[in-house]
Amino acid sequence: MKNLIADAIQFKEGKLWILNQQALPLKEEWIESRSPDEMIEIIKTLKVRGAPLIGIAAALALAQYVEQATVLDDLDAVAQKLIAARPTAVNLSYCVNQQLKAYQESRDPLAIIHVAENLFEEDVKLCEQMAAYGAALIADGESILTHCNTGALVTAGKGTALGVIFKAHQEGKKVHVYVDETRPLLQGARLTAWELDRAGVPHTLICDNMAASLMKAGKIHRVMTGADRIAANGDTANKIGTYGVAALARFHDIPFHIVAPETTIDWDCKDGDAIVIEERHADEVRGFANTAWSPQASPVYNPAFDVTPAELITNFITNRGVHQQMEKL
Amino acid sequence: MKNLIADAIQFKEGKLWILNQQALPLKEEWIESRSPDEMIEIIKTLKVRGAPLIGIAAALALAQYVEQATVLDDLDAVAQKLIAARPTAVNLSYCVNQQLKAYQESRDPLAIIHVAENLFEEDVKLCEQMAAYGAALIADGESILTHCNTGALVTAGKGTALGVIFKAHQEGKKVHVYVDETRPLLQGARLTAWELDRAGVPHTLICDNMAASLMKAGKIHRVMTGADRIAANGDTANKIGTYGVAALARFHDIPFHIVAPETTIDWDCKDGDAIVIEERHADEVRGFANTAWSPQASPVYNPAFDVTPAELITNFITNRGVHQQMEKL
Repeated sequence: MKNLIADAIQFKEGKLWILNQQALPLKEEWIESRSPDEMIEIIKTLKVRGAPLIGIAAALALAQYVEQATVLDDLDAVAQKLIAARPTAVNLSYCVNQQLKAYQESRDPLAIIHVAENLFEEDVKLCEQMAAYGAALIADGESILTHCNTGALVTAGKGTALGVIFKAHQEGKKVHVYVDETRPLLQGARLTAWELDRAGVPHTLICDNMAASLMKAGKIHRVMTGADRIAANGDTANKIGTYGVAALARFHDIPFHIVAPETTIDWDCKDGDAIVIEERHADEVRGFANTAWSPQASPVYNPAFDVTPAELITNFITNRGVHQQMEKL
Repeated sequence: MKNLIADAIQFKEGKLWILNQQALPLKEEWIESRSPDEMIEIIKTLKVRGAPLIGIAAALALAQYVEQATVLDDLDAVAQKLIAARPTAVNLSYCVNQQLKAYQESRDPLAIIHVAENLFEEDVKLCEQMAAYGAALIADGESILTHCNTGALVTAGKGTALGVIFKAHQEGKKVHVYVDETRPLLQGARLTAWELDRAGVPHTLICDNMAASLMKAGKIHRVMTGADRIAANGDTANKIGTYGVAALARFHDIPFHIVAPETTIDWDCKDGDAIVIEERHADEVRGFANTAWSPQASPVYNPAFDVTPAELITNFITNRGVHQQMEKL
C-alpha cells in the first residue's frame, strides 16, 4: 500500500499509526495498530473517532491485514468484527463493505488495498468539496456555534463542519467559533478548541448549557455540526447534544446546518426511528477520565448520540452541494 | 445566639460551622467560620452556596461578629463587604439589610442576632410551605427534570425545587428525577445526586446536553428549578443552563416551574435586563477542580447565571402559593 499521511492517521512504510485522541490536547501521542484486533480496540476506546475517520481507519487496518496475510480464509469474519466495533456510524460498514465487494468481484486481494487507498484520497477530496460549498454560506463577521469535533481529527482531510469554518477563515472572512465542550467526552473542549487554537481561528469555549443564552443574546448566527448517520428522510444521528442545539436554534430562528459527506447517508435507513443509538458506560458521566465527582451509586443515562429530525435541519452541506432534503440529492 | 442546626450550616455554642460543598460528595467536611472575612471567603469559593443559604450564612456571620465585638463602629462596612461577596443572589443583601434595619431602628446589637435567628427559622418554614404547594402539582408516576442543586444544601430547611420533590416522594408518590449534571461546577452531579441517593429517591444523572432528547422521547413530565433572583416582572436569574432548559421545555410543551421563597423576588428590579450576571474564572470551564482538559490558550465564556424570561415560566411556586405572574403575588 502507498504511504497515506493525514493529521490523525498515517500509513507509512507498511506501518499504520493513529494519533491517540484520548491523550489530546495534553499530549500528542501516536500509537501503532498492527492488526484488525488492535484497531477494534483503538476504535472502541475512542482513540480514533469521528465517523469518516473510523471508516478510513478500519479500511486501512483491513488492507494492512491483507498485505500481511498468507491466506484470506477468515477475511469475512475479520471484516464483520471491524464493522461491529461501533454500531452508529455508517461510514465504518460503508468502507469495509466497499472493500469486500471489490474483492468478491475481482478475487484479487490487491483490490482491498486499492479501495483503502481510494477511500483515503477520496475523503480528502470530499472534505475540500464540503468546505467550498459550506464556506460560501458564511458571511464576513459571523459567529458560528459548533458541537463535538469535526475537524482534521475526524477525516483524512480537513474535516466536515470544522473544515467549512477553516475554509471560511482561510478565505479571509472574520469568523468567530463558539465551541460546545460536548460532555461527557469533551471532544469540543479537548479537540475542537485545540484545532482552532492551532489554526489561529478566533473562538470561545463554552459549556453545553451556555449556548442557549448566547443564542438569546443574538451572538450565534448559525450552527454547524457533523453527522454520524443520516437516514434517507434526513433525520440525523450525531453526538449527544446535537438535537438540543438544533431545537434551540429553531426556537431562536437560527440556521442549523449538517455538514457530512455522502458516505454518511444511509439510504437503507428509512428514518431516525430506525437508527440504533449506542449507550456507553456510566462512569463517563460520573466523571471524566480518572476523576470521579458523582456518587458511584447514582444511576446514569449515557447515550452516545441523539437524532435530530430532518425538519429542524435548515440544510445539509455535502460534497455534492447544499441540499434542503436528502431526497433531492 | 441560640443553637441553629441545619443539614449544611450549624451555629452551635457560639461557633459557626459550614458543610464544605466543594468537597462533596467525596468527603463530608465541616469548616469553621470565625469572622465575616472568613465567611466572605467561604461564600466566594462556593463552599457555601445556594441563594437562600448564602443569605442565612451571611446573617449568621454578622450575628456572630456582633456577639463577639466590643464596639460596632464598622458594622456598616462589614455588612457591605458581606453583601458584595456575590452579586447575583438577592437573598444575601435581603438578609443583611434586614439586620441593619433592625439595628438602625432599635440601636440594640441584640436585634441583629434576633433577625439572624428569625431568618433561619423562617427559612425552614418557607421550605415547608413551598414543598406543600409544589408537591400538590406532582402526579403519581411523574418524571421531573431538575437543574443545579436546590435541596437541603441551599437552605436552612429542606430546599426549594428539590424540597418539593422530596415532599412528593415522602407523600408516597412514585417520582423519578432526571438530574442535569450542571456544568461547569457540577452541582447536579455532585450534590443533587448525593442528596437524592441519601434520601432514596429514584433518579438518573445525565449530562446537560441529554435533557433535550429525553424531552423528545416523552420522558420528562415537568421541569423544576430554583432561582437566584426574580425580577418584578417574573424574569428569573438562575444557574447557567436554566434558560436553555426552559426554552427546550417550551419547545416540547412541558411545564416549567420556578420554586423559590418570596425573599428571592427583587421588587426593585424591573426585569431581567436589570440583573447583573456574574462571570466566573475561565479555568472552571477549561476543566474541573484540579483537572484541566482544554488548551490553556482557548478563551472561555463563563457566566454563572442566565435569565429565563417570565413568558417561559409556567408558574412560580413560592411559600405563598402557586402564581402565574409575580404581579399577582
